[in-house]
Amino acid sequence: MDLMTKVVSLCKRRGFVFQSSEIYGGLKSFYDYGPLGVDLKKNIAKLWWDDMVDNRENVVGLDSSIIMHPRVWQSSGHVSNFSDPLVDCLNCKARFRGDKQPSLAPGSTVTWRSKASGDNNVLKTGQVGDHGYVCPECGCPHLSQPRDFSGLFKTFLGAVDPLSCINPSTPPSQAAIDHLLSQTVYLRPETAQAMFIQFLNVQKSMGLKVPFGIAQHGKSFRNEIVVEHFIFRSCEFEQMEMEFFCEPGTEKEWLSYWSENRLSWYQKYGNHRDNFRLRAHDSSELAHYSDACYDIEYQYPWGWDELEGVASRGDYDLHAHSQGSKAKLSYFDPKKTDPATGKVGWRYMPKVIEPAAGLTRAFLCFLLDAYSESRGVTSTGEEKNRFFLNLHPLLAPYKAAILPLSKDDGLMTLAHSLGKEWRKSGLKLTVDGYQSIGKRYAKHDEIGTPYAVTVDHQSLVDHHVTVRNRNTTHQVRVPFKQAQLMITESLERR
Amino acid sequence: MDLMTKVVSLCKRRGFVFQSSEIYGGLKSFYDYGPLGVDLKKNIAKLWWDDMVDNRENVVGLDSSIIMHPRVWQSSGHVSNFSDPLVDCLNCKARFRGDKQPSLAPGSTVTWRSKASGDNNVLKTGQVGDHGYVCPECGCPHLSQPRDFSGLFKTFLGAVDPLSCINPSTPPSQAAIDHLLSQTVYLRPETAQAMFIQFLNVQKSMGLKVPFGIAQHGKSFRNEIVVEHFIFRSCEFEQMEMEFFCEPGTEKEWLSYWSENRLSWYQKYGNHRDNFRLRAHDSSELAHYSDACYDIEYQYPWGWDELEGVASRGDYDLHAHSQGSKAKLSYFDPKKTDPATGKVGWRYMPKVIEPAAGLTRAFLCFLLDAYSESRGVTSTGEEKNRFFLNLHPLLAPYKAAILPLSKDDGLMTLAHSLGKEWRKSGLKLTVDGYQSIGKRYAKHDEIGTPYAVTVDHQSLVDHHVTVRNRNTTHQVRVPFKQAQLMITESLERR
Repeated sequence: MDLMTKVVSLCKRRGFVFQSSEIYGGLKSFYDYGPLGVDLKKNIAKLWWDDMVDNRENVVGLDSSIIMHPRVWQSSGHVSNFSDPLVDCLNCKARFRGDKQPSLAPGSTVTWRSKASGDNNVLKTGQVGDHGYVCPECGCPHLSQPRDFSGLFKTFLGAVDPLSCINPSTPPSQAAIDHLLSQTVYLRPETAQAMFIQFLNVQKSMGLKVPFGIAQHGKSFRNEIVVEHFIFRSCEFEQMEMEFFCEPGTEKEWLSYWSENRLSWYQKYGNHRDNFRLRAHDSSELAHYSDACYDIEYQYPWGWDELEGVASRGDYDLHAHSQGSKAKLSYFDPKKTDPATGKVGWRYMPKVIEPAAGLTRAFLCFLLDAYSESRGVTSTGEEKNRFFLNLHPLLAPYKAAILPLSKDDGLMTLAHSLGKEWRKSGLKLTVDGYQSIGKRYAKHDEIGTPYAVTVDHQSLVDHHVTVRNRNTTHQVRVPFKQAQLMITESLERR
Repeated sequence: MDLMTKVVSLCKRRGFVFQSSEIYGGLKSFYDYGPLGVDLKKNIAKLWWDDMVDNRENVVGLDSSIIMHPRVWQSSGHVSNFSDPLVDCLNCKARFRGDKQPSLAPGSTVTWRSKASGDNNVLKTGQVGDHGYVCPECGCPHLSQPRDFSGLFKTFLGAVDPLSCINPSTPPSQAAIDHLLSQTVYLRPETAQAMFIQFLNVQKSMGLKVPFGIAQHGKSFRNEIVVEHFIFRSCEFEQMEMEFFCEPGTEKEWLSYWSENRLSWYQKYGNHRDNFRLRAHDSSELAHYSDACYDIEYQYPWGWDELEGVASRGDYDLHAHSQGSKAKLSYFDPKKTDPATGKVGWRYMPKVIEPAAGLTRAFLCFLLDAYSESRGVTSTGEEKNRFFLNLHPLLAPYKAAILPLSKDDGLMTLAHSLGKEWRKSGLKLTVDGYQSIGKRYAKHDEIGTPYAVTVDHQSLVDHHVTVRNRNTTHQVRVPFKQAQLMITESLERR
């Protein structure tokens, strides 16, 4: 089994990620986070928020609505540009994104097997068209013209059901169509635009001075035609984005600061530093408004791919929303000299650096990064292959599992009373009393619990427990208090 | 100004809640949570999650997708039943929900002023129709027939844009319509159904034994025609719901447990116990599948209204999804005796108790509850009216504000170094160096910061700070360490 298959299987088996609506046959590219997945996702989001917001003086949070005024997405360019060239194969009917295919030389000769009825599987030869695409399924170059497919999910506010306007016999009135168009809104395809349109409200209510940042974490939606690699590219996903507003002329240094800072953040919580890297966009990759951009990439099983983008966006967004709304999205610094007039007091539109992380992608990357195999000794002294999730203790769903050796003789009661006591220091714990101790060790290795704390009959007498380390399988017998200390210290040390 | 107006104004002014897309004229009934609102909302959600999930052995979390398979909502009854009777006034064109109007005796005589052109403002007389409604705007009884208006937001997966099918001249083909129908999905109107459809995945992956609960917190969407009371009833809102699965015959005791438990939770973090109450639904209010239900109500400025519902839902939902999907949503207890056969080993469909809280409503209620006015002494010794947010320290956005008396002479540096040190114990703090000290006190009273810690020149020498209590305005001068202790202890004590 390859790593990806192992991780997907682990996710389902141990309650990290389930397919959405599985009992109804599932909904492609939508996922539910199970009990352990919720914990891992919350832990990632909290570490991001701590680092980006709570531990800084000059970054504040925002939590905007998913449905915003449709003009937000007109001004931002999403309504007109946020679309993919969609192509249908005229041979096998596959539908694909043209821009995601390797491009062949127009006019070069290719062969494919015909799917036409009565013509089954006959080998055909033909020429690649002007776009250079062939069908990724059957290799045929006979394709529909690429047509724009919007990545925005539409929905409709108000009382008219769009489906009620669609009828094969009676066309709807123009008034009904106009009404429907007027109530069309979008599910946000990114969390970012809210920080631009609430720039003034946030800056003024909090009395913020440039440079400052506005951060948001939440769900976004994209009507993706090609979904791939499990949760890596899906239609409903979570982002952690920050817009950092700075003085014109300081963009370069802040871009460098934030790209380094974000790379270190991943490396701090991952195990394999070399599987994370910064890659500068070359000029052909840059959006027209962006003067520089770094991708933070991770070496996934399918190769290096995006984890986070850190982009220098100039004042493109504030400018676009200022034009679109007529609001004056600028900042006044009473102490700085305006370079244009030479006078003290400078009103300018801040430049923006945007570290835009995918929470869903970070979730996948930390799972892949943590998946470890080693030789280990079982409880019966046997040495065999085992696997464990080497999750950073701050990411692990449970910080420790308390395992009573038996359900009887007061061991369960003691386990629960330790659990209750230790939870007071904010530790997320589980008391797990079922199955053999070997199976329980294996289970907590699999879900990344750093410590398994075994309560046995001797514990009732000497107030000691056996603490087993997930990574090394080493065990030590220590007093209750010291066991608790080992667990809490693991959360501080790294 | 009434309390509601004061709180709405505070929310905007101090960065708790902004109207969505305000610079584009706003989007009615959609709201953004600003920097302090994010903190308050996160704090409420965390206290709920701690109490419902992390501090319990038998409740686990779930975080499902907002878009689920459409058959989920067919089985649950939402597609057919989740609609309101919408009525249009034939006189003034107002649109309203018939079931929200006071009902008059059918046939009784009412008068209203005509809005017909050429007939302006003429007094008319007429009879109330069979439904007993008159227009809430103009009093006219001449209304359209009530028609069902779905509260579900629809959106469309895949490549066909519904608007492309709508054309006044060419009706769409039946194939296009069928395709569109087949890709229609809904934004969830509640978080709850995911817990039923993932019942087996969660139970099995976590090895859970009945009784156990599955909890979820997240956004839901309802296409509300009547939105009211600021964030109380809005189209996009947040819920905190838990489904507690228990053995048949134990529902009554669990309903009583959870309704008492949830009421105490609100009373613990609120100031006015008597503004919270439990109200049992009478039989006419109960859904057909529910055998009992309590509302936890709060005394809002407009009267007692819902905060949370705690319902005994029987096995209605598991049954409906089991029928709809053919999945066997039952639980097997190998130790219990099946009452039907008298044999050991009992397979049954668990009964469900559902405490369903509105996070958005809890947010509003805690703000209203905390809004306080009193006489107080200003920094200049003047006694005057002041107001403050008496938020529980665990709810307050900042646990303390560190206020350097001046921006110079190293006071700012000392304030930041105290902030950095105190943050290590997980305290959310702000260092606030602008404006006069009186204005800063007033601001932190307004946003509910329990302690204002003033750093003055003497602090550089004697390592003492002045700690001011938000509620009493009393000040004490204490060593750095003791100030930190006062703040951390306030979070533990209550």
